[in-house]
Amino acid sequence: MDDLGASTPFLNKYAQKVSLCRRILRSIWHFLSKEPAKSIHALKMAIAFTLAFLLALIELPYSVFGDHIIWAIMTVIVVFEFTIGATFSKGVNRGIGTLLAGLLAVVIGELASLGKGIVHPIMVGACAFITGAMVTYGKLWPTMKPYEYGFRIFLITFSYIMVAEYRQSDPIRMAVNRFFIILLGAVIGISVNVFVLPLWAGDELHEIISKNFNSLADSLEVCVNEYLRGAVLERVPTKILMGLAADDPVYEGYRSTLISAAKEESLATFASWEPPHGRFWKFRYPWQNYVKVGAILRHCTYSIVALHACLRSAIQAPVQVRSLFRDEIFAVSQACALAFRKLGGQVSLMQKSDGMAIMSGVHRAVEQLQESLYLRSYLLVRPETGILEQKLTEELPLSVIPEIKKSEVDMEVAGRFNPTALGIAVKPESPLELNRRQYKRLYSWPHREVDDYKFTKDSVLQQKVRVLESASAMSLGTFATLLVEVAMRLDYLVDAVDELGELAGFREVVKEQSNGPEQQGEENGTNHSMFVL
Amino acid sequence: MDDLGASTPFLNKYAQKVSLCRRILRSIWHFLSKEPAKSIHALKMAIAFTLAFLLALIELPYSVFGDHIIWAIMTVIVVFEFTIGATFSKGVNRGIGTLLAGLLAVVIGELASLGKGIVHPIMVGACAFITGAMVTYGKLWPTMKPYEYGFRIFLITFSYIMVAEYRQSDPIRMAVNRFFIILLGAVIGISVNVFVLPLWAGDELHEIISKNFNSLADSLEVCVNEYLRGAVLERVPTKILMGLAADDPVYEGYRSTLISAAKEESLATFASWEPPHGRFWKFRYPWQNYVKVGAILRHCTYSIVALHACLRSAIQAPVQVRSLFRDEIFAVSQACALAFRKLGGQVSLMQKSDGMAIMSGVHRAVEQLQESLYLRSYLLVRPETGILEQKLTEELPLSVIPEIKKSEVDMEVAGRFNPTALGIAVKPESPLELNRRQYKRLYSWPHREVDDYKFTKDSVLQQKVRVLESASAMSLGTFATLLVEVAMRLDYLVDAVDELGELAGFREVVKEQSNGPEQQGEENGTNHSMFVL
Repeated sequence: MDDLGASTPFLNKYAQKVSLCRRILRSIWHFLSKEPAKSIHALKMAIAFTLAFLLALIELPYSVFGDHIIWAIMTVIVVFEFTIGATFSKGVNRGIGTLLAGLLAVVIGELASLGKGIVHPIMVGACAFITGAMVTYGKLWPTMKPYEYGFRIFLITFSYIMVAEYRQSDPIRMAVNRFFIILLGAVIGISVNVFVLPLWAGDELHEIISKNFNSLADSLEVCVNEYLRGAVLERVPTKILMGLAADDPVYEGYRSTLISAAKEESLATFASWEPPHGRFWKFRYPWQNYVKVGAILRHCTYSIVALHACLRSAIQAPVQVRSLFRDEIFAVSQACALAFRKLGGQVSLMQKSDGMAIMSGVHRAVEQLQESLYLRSYLLVRPETGILEQKLTEELPLSVIPEIKKSEVDMEVAGRFNPTALGIAVKPESPLELNRRQYKRLYSWPHREVDDYKFTKDSVLQQKVRVLESASAMSLGTFATLLVEVAMRLDYLVDAVDELGELAGFREVVKEQSNGPEQQGEENGTNHSMFVL
Repeated sequence: MDDLGASTPFLNKYAQKVSLCRRILRSIWHFLSKEPAKSIHALKMAIAFTLAFLLALIELPYSVFGDHIIWAIMTVIVVFEFTIGATFSKGVNRGIGTLLAGLLAVVIGELASLGKGIVHPIMVGACAFITGAMVTYGKLWPTMKPYEYGFRIFLITFSYIMVAEYRQSDPIRMAVNRFFIILLGAVIGISVNVFVLPLWAGDELHEIISKNFNSLADSLEVCVNEYLRGAVLERVPTKILMGLAADDPVYEGYRSTLISAAKEESLATFASWEPPHGRFWKFRYPWQNYVKVGAILRHCTYSIVALHACLRSAIQAPVQVRSLFRDEIFAVSQACALAFRKLGGQVSLMQKSDGMAIMSGVHRAVEQLQESLYLRSYLLVRPETGILEQKLTEELPLSVIPEIKKSEVDMEVAGRFNPTALGIAVKPESPLELNRRQYKRLYSWPHREVDDYKFTKDSVLQQKVRVLESASAMSLGTFATLLVEVAMRLDYLVDAVDELGELAGFREVVKEQSNGPEQQGEENGTNHSMFVL
């Protein structure tokens, strides 16, 4: 090595070049390995494409099929999709579309050729018109949507063979030829896709659904912990309103579940085209049940979205009020998150387990929360009823949230804004703009005539503050109720996962945890309690 | 007419046949006119297809382009999409893909042909491999998604010309030929699509978004009216959980908003390809703002979903409690529905109007609801606190909801179920199955050890009932808070519609309604008050 270091300038240059090459190669490798599935797909496509190309380059197939061999390459290009299911679906669509269209075109072409002179092209044209209209209408039929590609190929082959027939080539030979060339292309495409590093739609669906359980659990935990910590957040930012990626852990947790409906649906459709493979070694694997589980997860998500809205609501329970029910709310969120994770684990590991055991911890926690709300709900309503005066002034100096108090003050200073000048372009990045919008919003809310009030002993401002105080304490009740709603929807989820496990033949596991769900819950609680403090 | 009726059997038969034909034609017409857009599309496709076919049937173009004329027909078939924007997008993709691939293939082919003997096919194969891998990888790039079709066409043309080049045809002539034929097909497809009964993606997007405002308003109104009427509904049925169409007016109202995200996105993409037309006579029309409005509508929908969950929740406020706040809740729902409709009208008629004026009715109603909650929220908490005893026993015989009472009784009779036998297949249609599942759910909820209770003066059952009573009254507070949340999200919607109006240049309208939103609200209230009674 020392020898090399002390060698001639030529060798030095050479070493530099090598290291440059290595750096370039490494950065390419880094780039490609970021999303390995995409690289794998590109590589597979290149292999299939080249194999089809060889058909045209090598003498034997070319001498048999002639220039038509290009159809095999086109078939590979068109049929080769990301997942195996999609490739199968397209390949079969293409095959059947070609076959049927070939048969129809040969028959119609023969009939049309009975007309002599000008009648022949008119009949061909009329047949084209009718076929075109009917096939296009059929393609738009709702139940025909998965076969849309087949309809398109039908028209292409139909016109191809009709033209050949009209132009006095040998239409039958051409139809057979075209069918076999397309078959050849489809076989190349499908074989490469299946036998070289296969990417199954079923696997992807399984992963997505399993992951969504965990991210919902994360989302729920973070949301409840932030709430109990008394985080004061601005209202829902525009990015979240628009469903775009945003830097909010709660939102990031549930976002993928919220937007993945179409993807899950199409993956399930493709997966149903796939033969039994790997973990899913079962004929007629119940892929549609994954979609069902996904849909019910989405339904749980709607409740979490509502919880998130509570967390970011302008009218908030003061942190002292929240702390009254802290343990119970925390226990419910922990139990629900644990249930989500356990169910996700069941799906992910393909294990069956006792739904009742999973839910018993949740039920216990929910009941304790309800009981606690029952016993102490009087703390949530208006402070000056008399009996609570003492307790509240001691324990909780119920204050309006800072935002609102600020708005009252600012309003006096800022005076009236010109509303038409404010409702224009939204640039969530500009703090100035945000400020203006905030003003507008805060200004627009407490807008009321004095006469509306039925009590007049206090100043209007004081009354206003008291109404908002009451609403703010009430919002804790809402938060708790929504949390209970999440817990209740878990029941449906347990059913759906059970059903999936039954139909998919998940493995039975020895019920070791059926006795101690509470212990596990508590254990989990202590593990995560640092979040609350 | 009488003559015909009394004529010979032959004429009779003839008349029968005519009436049969007429019936058939009428039913076909009925069938086609059900979804006119689909029929129009099919007709247009047939026209374009036939026109392209004529190129192959008539001597002149055929003598120029020969058998390659089939590419024009294929281009029409492939490019012809439902909306004009989609057709443009595909046409341009196809054109540019073909052009670039043609250039690249000619250059690479010439370079590869420098290698003699076995080197030539090897170089061609290597080029195919590299091109295939790179193009496929590029296609998967997230920002390249709209151009996916262009990449595919690139590969097809590339292979087509490379093979031609290898097989000693005239590649440049072929590339030019192919380009012009494809251009011809694209021109036919696009012209027919634009000039014969055009279907614009922009129009469809505009309609969808406008309609969603009204259906959300309907959904909200029905939901609140049902709630105030004290409707006792079963829990959310599986169909709704799965996002399928279901016979529930509340759900049907918000469903389309909930599931239309992907559709709105793709329509906006296609619309941005469309030239200015009709009402949208503006260069760079802000289609993405429609998507934004749609997204914020979806965010409002999540709150309505939560309201709907309240309506169908197992734990419900008794109708007497609901009636305490009936007027205020009804006023908020009416004001919100009116605001939704007004905003929808603005979008639909492309008018600008004052957002503050629209919202002032909503703000007033929300404040009255909050005030009322403040003044009477003590009615929502546990009845035996003492001060309320008298009032409650007079006004509200707070009873547990029938479902739960029934479950307590049934439980005694039914004994313990075997839980593993219950968690299996869900068939929402079977009433027996539903019953069993209902049992399971009702059984599974009130499951708790007696020791958990901190008070022991009543029997366990009585205590249990009281806890549920408290939770049930509390659920009214949740309903009200969620309703307020809907109202608050309307602010964002007003902003988004304002922004859209500003950028799209909606017409300014004379502000006639800016003084009397309350009057309109009240008027509306009386119109719809029959729903409540």
